[in-house]
Amino acid sequence: MNDDVQGTIPAGTPLSTELLADMHAYWRACNYLSVGMIYLRANPLLREPLQAEHIKRRLLGHCGSDPGQSFVWVHLNWLIKRDDLNVMFVSGPGHGAPATLSNAYLEGHYSEIYPDRSADERGMLKLFRAFSSPGRIGSHCTPETPGSIHEGGELGYSLSHSFGAAFDNPDLIVATMVGDGEAETGPLATSWHSNKFLNPATDGAVLPILHLNGYKIANPTILARIPHDELEALMKGYGYAPHFVEGDEPEAMHQRMAAVLERCIADIRAIQTHARAHPDDIERPRWPMIVLRSPKGWTGPKEVDGHKVENFWRSHQVPIADPATNRKNLAVLEQWMRSYKPEELFDENGTLIEKLRALAPDGTRRISANPHANGGVLRQSLDLPDIREYAFEFRHAASEYQSPTAVLATFLRDVIRRNMTRFRLFGPDETASNKLDGVYEASDKRWLAETLPEDADGGALSIDGRVMEMLSEHTLEGWFEGYVLTGRHGLFATYEAFVHVIDSMFNQHTKWLEKAKNELDWRQPVPSINLLITSLVWRQDHNGFTHQDPGFLDVVTNKSPGVVRIYLPPDANCLLSVADHCLRTHDYVNVIVADKQPHLQYLSMQDAIVHCAKGIGIWDWASTDQGHEPDVVIASAGDIATMEALAAVEILKQHCADLKIRFVNVVDLFRLMPDTDHPHGLSDRDFDSIFTRDKPVIFNFHSYPSLVHKLTYNRTNHANMHVHGYRERGNINTPVRTGDHQWRGSLFARHRRDRSRSAHPQ
Amino acid sequence: MNDDVQGTIPAGTPLSTELLADMHAYWRACNYLSVGMIYLRANPLLREPLQAEHIKRRLLGHCGSDPGQSFVWVHLNWLIKRDDLNVMFVSGPGHGAPATLSNAYLEGHYSEIYPDRSADERGMLKLFRAFSSPGRIGSHCTPETPGSIHEGGELGYSLSHSFGAAFDNPDLIVATMVGDGEAETGPLATSWHSNKFLNPATDGAVLPILHLNGYKIANPTILARIPHDELEALMKGYGYAPHFVEGDEPEAMHQRMAAVLERCIADIRAIQTHARAHPDDIERPRWPMIVLRSPKGWTGPKEVDGHKVENFWRSHQVPIADPATNRKNLAVLEQWMRSYKPEELFDENGTLIEKLRALAPDGTRRISANPHANGGVLRQSLDLPDIREYAFEFRHAASEYQSPTAVLATFLRDVIRRNMTRFRLFGPDETASNKLDGVYEASDKRWLAETLPEDADGGALSIDGRVMEMLSEHTLEGWFEGYVLTGRHGLFATYEAFVHVIDSMFNQHTKWLEKAKNELDWRQPVPSINLLITSLVWRQDHNGFTHQDPGFLDVVTNKSPGVVRIYLPPDANCLLSVADHCLRTHDYVNVIVADKQPHLQYLSMQDAIVHCAKGIGIWDWASTDQGHEPDVVIASAGDIATMEALAAVEILKQHCADLKIRFVNVVDLFRLMPDTDHPHGLSDRDFDSIFTRDKPVIFNFHSYPSLVHKLTYNRTNHANMHVHGYRERGNINTPVRTGDHQWRGSLFARHRRDRSRSAHPQ
Repeated sequence: MNDDVQGTIPAGTPLSTELLADMHAYWRACNYLSVGMIYLRANPLLREPLQAEHIKRRLLGHCGSDPGQSFVWVHLNWLIKRDDLNVMFVSGPGHGAPATLSNAYLEGHYSEIYPDRSADERGMLKLFRAFSSPGRIGSHCTPETPGSIHEGGELGYSLSHSFGAAFDNPDLIVATMVGDGEAETGPLATSWHSNKFLNPATDGAVLPILHLNGYKIANPTILARIPHDELEALMKGYGYAPHFVEGDEPEAMHQRMAAVLERCIADIRAIQTHARAHPDDIERPRWPMIVLRSPKGWTGPKEVDGHKVENFWRSHQVPIADPATNRKNLAVLEQWMRSYKPEELFDENGTLIEKLRALAPDGTRRISANPHANGGVLRQSLDLPDIREYAFEFRHAASEYQSPTAVLATFLRDVIRRNMTRFRLFGPDETASNKLDGVYEASDKRWLAETLPEDADGGALSIDGRVMEMLSEHTLEGWFEGYVLTGRHGLFATYEAFVHVIDSMFNQHTKWLEKAKNELDWRQPVPSINLLITSLVWRQDHNGFTHQDPGFLDVVTNKSPGVVRIYLPPDANCLLSVADHCLRTHDYVNVIVADKQPHLQYLSMQDAIVHCAKGIGIWDWASTDQGHEPDVVIASAGDIATMEALAAVEILKQHCADLKIRFVNVVDLFRLMPDTDHPHGLSDRDFDSIFTRDKPVIFNFHSYPSLVHKLTYNRTNHANMHVHGYRERGNINTPVRTGDHQWRGSLFARHRRDRSRSAHPQ
Repeated sequence: MNDDVQGTIPAGTPLSTELLADMHAYWRACNYLSVGMIYLRANPLLREPLQAEHIKRRLLGHCGSDPGQSFVWVHLNWLIKRDDLNVMFVSGPGHGAPATLSNAYLEGHYSEIYPDRSADERGMLKLFRAFSSPGRIGSHCTPETPGSIHEGGELGYSLSHSFGAAFDNPDLIVATMVGDGEAETGPLATSWHSNKFLNPATDGAVLPILHLNGYKIANPTILARIPHDELEALMKGYGYAPHFVEGDEPEAMHQRMAAVLERCIADIRAIQTHARAHPDDIERPRWPMIVLRSPKGWTGPKEVDGHKVENFWRSHQVPIADPATNRKNLAVLEQWMRSYKPEELFDENGTLIEKLRALAPDGTRRISANPHANGGVLRQSLDLPDIREYAFEFRHAASEYQSPTAVLATFLRDVIRRNMTRFRLFGPDETASNKLDGVYEASDKRWLAETLPEDADGGALSIDGRVMEMLSEHTLEGWFEGYVLTGRHGLFATYEAFVHVIDSMFNQHTKWLEKAKNELDWRQPVPSINLLITSLVWRQDHNGFTHQDPGFLDVVTNKSPGVVRIYLPPDANCLLSVADHCLRTHDYVNVIVADKQPHLQYLSMQDAIVHCAKGIGIWDWASTDQGHEPDVVIASAGDIATMEALAAVEILKQHCADLKIRFVNVVDLFRLMPDTDHPHGLSDRDFDSIFTRDKPVIFNFHSYPSLVHKLTYNRTNHANMHVHGYRERGNINTPVRTGDHQWRGSLFARHRRDRSRSAHPQ
């Protein structure tokens, strides 16, 4: 291991007395606002003595991590101004909004976006009153928070989001407050290893600041209760050069933080400068990181009602719960707030005094105004090749086999080539398994750990790779989210069985999109998350039962229709068409279900384009109704399901030649929903015209049958829909149904196909 | 940090020449079988020259990690025999079955369970042929594998499962092969910290062996490509004392492994002995762990078709893909298999020779026969107090408020007291927030990291705690699964919003249960996983949109009905009744949905017991139909939904006094399903008798309305079911429906309640 080249940071006083006093004052202003927005509904600047009627009727918000976060922000401001740095701030600890909002407000950007929350007493009061009110400002770093790309409601993704933001943004430094509670989560614990994927020449930098304030909601944190040497070893083991800033006395802490931060930025710059000067000689740097051990609830009351508060978990949320009804505690609260001396910080209008305003950077250098955090502003569309050049050619439908994903890979290869700084492909060590290795002609896999000569065989590794492979779906999804929220594009391909690993991340990202899209004009549309679900469960018998669960679509369909899309292209050309479409979209999570194994191919490229644009269609060539009212509709969604359904039609043609069959293929699953429920939904009239109003429909579906019922239960002909799909084997004493209706008045013998995986010994 | 008290392990030769030769021979036998089961359908012992027709028609299985895993198993056997150790083996690398199956077979236990796969040539061939055949033996360490509690299909849970098994099993040592690909996952990366929760006096030990064989499917692993010092620092940072076994030359590796393993076991014993002799003076030990750096595909072919195989990712799965059609590669395969010299290992019957059989332990000391891995064998029922003693008493229904979880806590407190070695409560730093802190009267929170005096305030920490709090749902669920699979009991309480974090773990555990329960007579029933979903989304407006997603029930209902149960008790006494029931069950995942906020209370304890046993019932005291056919049925499932529904009834009583209302409450959600689909389902006749055949039903539901439709779409009266529930806000330009049917011929004005969270500024 490299020696710690940087060596120990000398004790010193990088801040002049005056600058230190000003920065400390700015910090006091942040802390004052953070407390004010939790407690006050009137008298925002405490111009009058604090009274019970000034207190909010419901106290919501979290104090504990705010002072530490603001402390870091204030210090970042100093270096941003001094060195013209380009910095984003990601707030990992949950409920960190008071800190980020205070800073966004003090540096003026917040009021530019929300003019009624102006930089004066009136605006300050509006901010206070809106904070943590239902329907107004949330207590996490929600999309409403300028400068935020990371809400932190569900913990664990701060670092992966940060690295995603830093990728291909060589000037950007992402300062990441990592919560020490957050650091106990699985996703956070592995995401430290993102430093094996960051190229100092072409990417930006991430500066993690582990906020070791020692406590979670109601417990100490693990990392704060292990010896110093052990924590230092852990950070070195993760590949960082840790620097410790520890204490609680403000003046000493300011000087120490300034020295350490200055040193870290200098080290980042040195690493980058060296790498950019010697692009052929890049080794994985030991990036700096900071451990900030400061008290939870720093500068807050030391004790309330005989219980320790500052530097204990009781400062987590609202440390004084009853100031409106308890005079003693009202006084404690007033004393706390006045300790920040607001009268020295805000002028007679309630505006931050000029001397302190000057500490904040200007324009887009303000952290809250960094355009990368409103990624749609910087978004450049992909330069996409013409999918027709990648078409799989065949002579007639259903005669030749091809792997859909292998065909897609040829297209993705050229997408990569044409967009070398704004598109990445993500996969959890499955890219080759998913037959997407065709992309390796355009790009290696990204790797900054050690390499060996044999690595060149079959998918090389290099520091420049555009293919991101790590065996962590959480980290990949986090990178991808950070990447799109800063305006770039990508695709994440994963085994169907394991996409459930990121169910909750999917939920959280769609919530972010929904809020940003529906309520915040100032947030520009960002590229979509494109999830390719492959290695489908129907072809996973060799891997066993654990690899078989197609239920992710159920999770997706519960999300807001405005932001989710599901496509099940039945063959390779359709997959190309769907993928091309998805790569052009914004503000969605697109879920594409397509297998990797060789499958029959049905539609020419031109037909595929038309079919996928419609999202649903009758395949005349597979139908026997000759455009008339059919006797039965056979429908399919999913490539494997389509092959089976077509085979069924073939059998029927042989045995029931007079039967008038209409074959319908569904690509865009939301076509099945009413148009009143989903932007892509069919009207009842259009649905009925395809599925008829009263004929039996046999629907062969990729996932759980109940999902089709959920989407169609309100349709005229729903009572006649018989859906076959995936079903877990029930108790062996219970007859296994395939989830469909009882046959009523059916035209032919009851057809019981148990399509669930049989696991009985033969 | 403690100095490395143990110091360096001296080089040496703990194994005599003869013992080393025997152990190496045993290992060759394991490796032979591991390869044989992947390739051969005939000629299992290669008594004849290998021919193409001896090769399986489809080659499935994974070679890469088997030699390393068997290597460890063989060495564990030595020490088990020598020191009469009680050892389980958890196989973290995916697809590790060839190793575990080979060992289970060689030590004789496998044939005791599957007599037709006997310890002779005939049985060996059956084992080979059954391996990786659909419907027969899976390629992961499935439930069919004796000795396994961890399938490893989805990676990341080996350590948390192991620690769960070790808890309260003071004699047990769980040897855990941690895959180096697996180690990149979030869940694994944080689970190393489980050592802050293991009590050396009263728990067993976990010995992690990081299987650093360097590669995943198609890439190197991160941990294998960082410098030695960095990896060592990482392990020390995680709190372990790492010992390295590195190389590929068998003799040296055998001696090194023996010395290191002997040392690790000795250190474990020393730690435990000291702790048990000085129970008042226990500090967190630096438990030993092993880094085994050995080649992937060790002892396999070095090269195939000009590509590197041994010590490269190409040994991951089936390194020689075409022996049946490629004579050259057939010869390579034969040479590989014969390199193990099977003729020296198996006698004329095909049985492992006596000298080698003697190396394996006996009876239940055999790893594959360890009863802890068939936890139901050791299961002891909980000693449960009478729930009636905890009943919340009130004078009349719907008049008093109480927190259901706070009442539950009093019961759980005494469950803990009465079952101090077989019950644990799990929570991700939310126990107090969820109002379960009443349990602290019986137990502290488990903590072996540092403590400070102030920790005693409000939920103390101690090494003996029965309450397990870590901010990682993955780790908690993993511990819990390991704990129940080894026969013990527990309850895991989590915020509803974040249960999705463990969606995929839930899926995998239910798959395990289903297989074990339905197909394997020899696996005894194990205690259920009990998930208490609380801090419900309907009362999370203060925490914002990210804390609102009740969709876990959708994930649950996709699982096999034989193993999942969902309960929504409407009040505190019902929660007691449901919890009591769940704690008595086996082989399920029970999901209980109950809020923590104070809610109205409805049923006396006696009525609650009856109501919950039925799982669904008409509340006469809330109805106005006086037992006759109603005009409308108002139904609810969920505590908050019930309160709203009852309030609606009150309003109707005032405004439509003549309306005959039947009030129905549903506790057991699966009652809504047909009895042909779920063991708890109601027959159509019973369902119709409750919900009528033709009257409007207004169903107020806790989660997404579509779920109720999914369960009831086949019922007679489904067309009249109008379900209100949770719905994400759609695009603001789309009218938001609540998921219910269009009103048809309704009795009163259309009632549009938008119950989704409004996020518009007011």
